[in-house]
Amino acid sequence: MISDTIAAISTAVGEAGIAVIRVSGPQSIGEVDQLFRGKQKLVDADSHTVHYGYIIDPDSGEKMEEVLVTIMRAPRSFTTEDVVEISSHGGVVSVRRLMELLLQQQIRIAEPGEFTKRAFLNGRIDLSQAEGVIDLIRSKSDKAFSVALRQVEGKLSRQIKPLQQILIEMVAHIEVNIDYPEHDVESVTSDFIKQKSLEVIGGIDELLRTANEGKILREGITTAIVGRPNVGKSSLLNTLAQDNRAIVTDIPGTTRDVIEEFVTINNIPLKLLDTAGIRETIDVVEKIGVERSRTAVSEADLILLVLNHNEALHEDEIQLLEQLKDRQVIIIVNKMDLYRQLDLVKLEEYFPKESIVTMSVKDQKGIDKLEEAISTLFFGGKLESADLTYVSNVRHIALLKQAKRSLQDAYQASDDMIPIDLIQIDVRLAWEQLGEIIGDSAPDSLIDQIFSQFCLGK
Amino acid sequence: MISDTIAAISTAVGEAGIAVIRVSGPQSIGEVDQLFRGKQKLVDADSHTVHYGYIIDPDSGEKMEEVLVTIMRAPRSFTTEDVVEISSHGGVVSVRRLMELLLQQQIRIAEPGEFTKRAFLNGRIDLSQAEGVIDLIRSKSDKAFSVALRQVEGKLSRQIKPLQQILIEMVAHIEVNIDYPEHDVESVTSDFIKQKSLEVIGGIDELLRTANEGKILREGITTAIVGRPNVGKSSLLNTLAQDNRAIVTDIPGTTRDVIEEFVTINNIPLKLLDTAGIRETIDVVEKIGVERSRTAVSEADLILLVLNHNEALHEDEIQLLEQLKDRQVIIIVNKMDLYRQLDLVKLEEYFPKESIVTMSVKDQKGIDKLEEAISTLFFGGKLESADLTYVSNVRHIALLKQAKRSLQDAYQASDDMIPIDLIQIDVRLAWEQLGEIIGDSAPDSLIDQIFSQFCLGK
Repeated sequence: MISDTIAAISTAVGEAGIAVIRVSGPQSIGEVDQLFRGKQKLVDADSHTVHYGYIIDPDSGEKMEEVLVTIMRAPRSFTTEDVVEISSHGGVVSVRRLMELLLQQQIRIAEPGEFTKRAFLNGRIDLSQAEGVIDLIRSKSDKAFSVALRQVEGKLSRQIKPLQQILIEMVAHIEVNIDYPEHDVESVTSDFIKQKSLEVIGGIDELLRTANEGKILREGITTAIVGRPNVGKSSLLNTLAQDNRAIVTDIPGTTRDVIEEFVTINNIPLKLLDTAGIRETIDVVEKIGVERSRTAVSEADLILLVLNHNEALHEDEIQLLEQLKDRQVIIIVNKMDLYRQLDLVKLEEYFPKESIVTMSVKDQKGIDKLEEAISTLFFGGKLESADLTYVSNVRHIALLKQAKRSLQDAYQASDDMIPIDLIQIDVRLAWEQLGEIIGDSAPDSLIDQIFSQFCLGK
Repeated sequence: MISDTIAAISTAVGEAGIAVIRVSGPQSIGEVDQLFRGKQKLVDADSHTVHYGYIIDPDSGEKMEEVLVTIMRAPRSFTTEDVVEISSHGGVVSVRRLMELLLQQQIRIAEPGEFTKRAFLNGRIDLSQAEGVIDLIRSKSDKAFSVALRQVEGKLSRQIKPLQQILIEMVAHIEVNIDYPEHDVESVTSDFIKQKSLEVIGGIDELLRTANEGKILREGITTAIVGRPNVGKSSLLNTLAQDNRAIVTDIPGTTRDVIEEFVTINNIPLKLLDTAGIRETIDVVEKIGVERSRTAVSEADLILLVLNHNEALHEDEIQLLEQLKDRQVIIIVNKMDLYRQLDLVKLEEYFPKESIVTMSVKDQKGIDKLEEAISTLFFGGKLESADLTYVSNVRHIALLKQAKRSLQDAYQASDDMIPIDLIQIDVRLAWEQLGEIIGDSAPDSLIDQIFSQFCLGK
């Protein structure tokens, strides 16, 4: 049982109207109350009420900050513990002063993700839901946010649990037959295991079906824009960033530079490599550009190769086309507004027509075709409805694949009439692998590692 | 009367546990309620209560975000209007999605400072209190924060208002005597005006007494660290930043770089000029260093000239000592751990002993003496108690000085037996000047300009 009380700054730190410090644990209300002066004592306050007052330095009696304090009593809170949220004026000094005061009480500073970890350890959410929380915060597009929110709501868990249930039935069935072996039930057991294994594999496949898309939504498609100098890479980048409203929009108060390298096309986040490099390219010696391109190309999931409609294919470009044959490439023939010098027929020797997009960035023509080509390449056209469960987390994908393999082994072993106590090992393993997704059977070290990647104050 | 409803992101935007959107205005509760699904309808909720639920896209019915919504009903809120605070998962996408939904309702985006402006226009706080709010957020040290908090509480206003009261009495007295002039009261009136003018001037002087300190606390002492290469400027800077815990402390979650150039010594914020330049200096050609120093010196309120105890005074340094004679300078003789080559007696020809501090940054010796020297130079030793009203805002200081001048004119005019209707103009002017501090008589353009400097969401 967790018995200590933790606190952290839960909002981003900076010049802003409001900052919030969150306190959670059995002493939270009592300890904050010792620092609070308002109309009512916090210890007497109802759950889910807000109280205006001042935080006082208990030593000097000096008013330290004007605050609104929210009380949420166990178990009706994020952590299921007593929670106090102190909403103060924004800025750096205010939260530092308040944190210093709190940490002089019976309160310690929270580790990254510790609030969510408590919600998990106290059983309010499972591990995949907890992981969804950080995905929400880090999401780079609306669609990715929706996928994460479904996960927070427990949609993935609700699909995993029935599969686990089948696995438990299989284990139980096997155990009965280990204890009371009879020759005539052996084959029945074998058929049962084969049938149930297929059933669970089917369920896993259904989940894995969207895994690739889910992963892309969560992490973005790592994209390299390459091409010789002056083909229009930089203009293309700027156009993409403007037209497809890079995640950070024109709503004032959102900072642009933090995730500048992300643009969102038809809800697909592209993580553009070497954005800075491209922007500089215009003034940079050709050689540097080429080297940079090479690095970017090796890392990318998607390569946008920009060619100039107004120039014949250059030797460098032919070399690139050769090299990229087995990669996910979209060829952009830019400057369609200029006279044609480029041999489009020759281009189709390297890449199929549907991978080639003609456009004029200058005249803002053809951008929609590029968007379409990307959608087609990665999602076979349209993204599916919001209601679909996307498995987006690589950890989950890996475990689903492992569980599938374990069950394939169990199926094969049953087919080979291998003793059922050996088959049971595979089935148990599959059960554990699925359990690790929702945290039933996750080792402490894994749990610690997952929450350590959270941000502070969550 | 203000009748529209405004919304803004009130927390800093970034990866964080919580973000808060604030909505204020007569439609706030009703409009947010249309997007909210929880146990209870918000329109039926009591003031100062918190509600868990989801924000729903009214068109698609899709759950957009998991939120806690706080209801504060007029007039018990920051703006005195109905206020709704939506607390969501942090990150960029969440707040953008929510803002987009809100702005589709009968809600418009708030201008910078518009919440505080409404608090002012609705009469909950006066102008100097409103200005204290942004000072709180921008404050760079504990002391500056305390000063701003006193201002938010209305301490400055409470000292201005009695002075205004006296001025009103003076105007009334004069008006009576303009309407019913009798020869024998003229001299009485003159004495009365002189006496009352002195009284108000006394009150203004009392406030101005701490103006210099207040301004320093609010804005920091612009400080240049200068000296030849390798005298230890960079080490000194690092030591100051560490020992005197630059405003951003070791509490995780606070970003260091944002206000890196501030260090706080005995609660006095120093704004260090060309911090980056100093850090680089080691590897930089001497000439650049010297040029940089020159710019920094011309802008600084305080110059820390670092000399090397282990080297005789260089020609450049003698030149600098000459140039700096009339400036606020502290001479730091560094490297006391090394053999003496520097002529300390010669140094005292340029600056008094108390301006010279010997130290060894390497051995962390003498830092306290530097702190002391700075305190003495700017505050004559110790900072006064927290209870003192510091006038810190240059606008307030200027208006106080103007009002004082107006009253000196009134006094002089009375002394010269100038007609009282002319004297009345000066007294009225002083009244207006004081009124402009607390906003009674501030023109709309000034008010707009003040709030436009606020951050968004406040």
